[in-house]
Amino acid sequence: MTYCVAVRVDQGLVFVSDSRTNAGVDHISTYGKMHKFLGDGERFFTLLTAGNLATSRAVVTKLRRDIEEGADESLATMARLTEAADYVGRISVEEQRKYEKRMKDKKVDTGASFIVGGQVKGQPHSVLLVYPEGNHIPVSRHSPFLQIGEEKYGKPILDRIIEPELSLEVAGRCALVSMDSTMRSNASVGPPIELLLYTADSQRPGSAVTFGEDDDYLRALRRSWQDSLKRAFNNLPTLPLPSGAVRLVDGDR
Amino acid sequence: MTYCVAVRVDQGLVFVSDSRTNAGVDHISTYGKMHKFLGDGERFFTLLTAGNLATSRAVVTKLRRDIEEGADESLATMARLTEAADYVGRISVEEQRKYEKRMKDKKVDTGASFIVGGQVKGQPHSVLLVYPEGNHIPVSRHSPFLQIGEEKYGKPILDRIIEPELSLEVAGRCALVSMDSTMRSNASVGPPIELLLYTADSQRPGSAVTFGEDDDYLRALRRSWQDSLKRAFNNLPTLPLPSGAVRLVDGDR
Repeated sequence: MTYCVAVRVDQGLVFVSDSRTNAGVDHISTYGKMHKFLGDGERFFTLLTAGNLATSRAVVTKLRRDIEEGADESLATMARLTEAADYVGRISVEEQRKYEKRMKDKKVDTGASFIVGGQVKGQPHSVLLVYPEGNHIPVSRHSPFLQIGEEKYGKPILDRIIEPELSLEVAGRCALVSMDSTMRSNASVGPPIELLLYTADSQRPGSAVTFGEDDDYLRALRRSWQDSLKRAFNNLPTLPLPSGAVRLVDGDR
Repeated sequence: MTYCVAVRVDQGLVFVSDSRTNAGVDHISTYGKMHKFLGDGERFFTLLTAGNLATSRAVVTKLRRDIEEGADESLATMARLTEAADYVGRISVEEQRKYEKRMKDKKVDTGASFIVGGQVKGQPHSVLLVYPEGNHIPVSRHSPFLQIGEEKYGKPILDRIIEPELSLEVAGRCALVSMDSTMRSNASVGPPIELLLYTADSQRPGSAVTFGEDDDYLRALRRSWQDSLKRAFNNLPTLPLPSGAVRLVDGDR
């Protein structure tokens, strides 16, 4: 499984991804799912991947080769982010067809999902989700984040906290907590965790941090978060129970 | 869809359930999913239901009838909670078989899941999950809660907070927040929300509260929770970014 999330705030973009892949519980490996392209002041793109690993790696390889070989169409020639999402979707579908043809009768899910985010100079910074079918949807002001993979565990915290006015750094903390919640609830999502903060209108690669298994910061974040939640519970309004119904003890209010 | 959760703490049991049922988005109704039985000082049971509505209602009807008719085997005769879970599982499988026989070739999922909780005098208070297959698992000290239905959104908060030493009332707030997170992320889980707190060793029905669509307490809870989370984020340790990489603004630390 996989969990990747991208957030758009006014100040820029946040990307967070895990690195665990598995084909059954006894076949677990580590693959980064965050791929950065360009960052030359003109264009910057980040790709997050989920789904069939062979498909997603083939797409990344093709994207890199098109740039290196100066193809007529590559991420280096895209005039907008939606064009880039179209292009990624097209390659993804082509790669899936290739495998499906070879495997014919075998029922293998070759589908992959992608998050494409970044900015072309003069255009707004944004994030799009590319479905296995090759089509895509963007973030909006009302839905300023997108997720792929095991998305449910980490969604409530994003739903409650993310808004466009949030600072890039606080949005980054929120995306990390969302990842931490997912790791805790699903063993097939795991470290290293990659985090990238992209500052709007820079078209530069931004700031990347990788957190390993026992990273001090991740542990401090988890502890601090847990403590805050416990305090938060003690400050929530007392349940409106019939009086005397439940014996209240120390710590209750 | 449905979301139900039951928590076991040393002081007692918490049960929370939503009331929305749907067979397609244009076929939504309201059915309580929490059913209380007995509470005579000798035995008290609560049943939470998810899955096929016809199956779960048939099970509830049969449980009530067996008590009323003084059957040889009913919740009123059970010596332990695990016996009660076996009994519920058996009825559930029987009901499913009945429907399946009638429908033959139609592919309808008649399965239902149940949470059975409560206490028989002299026995420990506990909670068990009864699978559609009729078998069951209990809560444990390491996993002091059980969920049925749309469980992923509401799990992280329970994972982080619930422990056996928690007071019954705070455990109740936590289960309600878990429900609120689920409602927010999944439109097919909805009010009225039923909450029940059972005090250990009472074998009495405990304290029940029902929260409607625009309940004042639920709104206050949600607002207070959201504010606390926002504060919590501002107090989390600052991301370990390369210095000067991201412009920190007011509100960042």
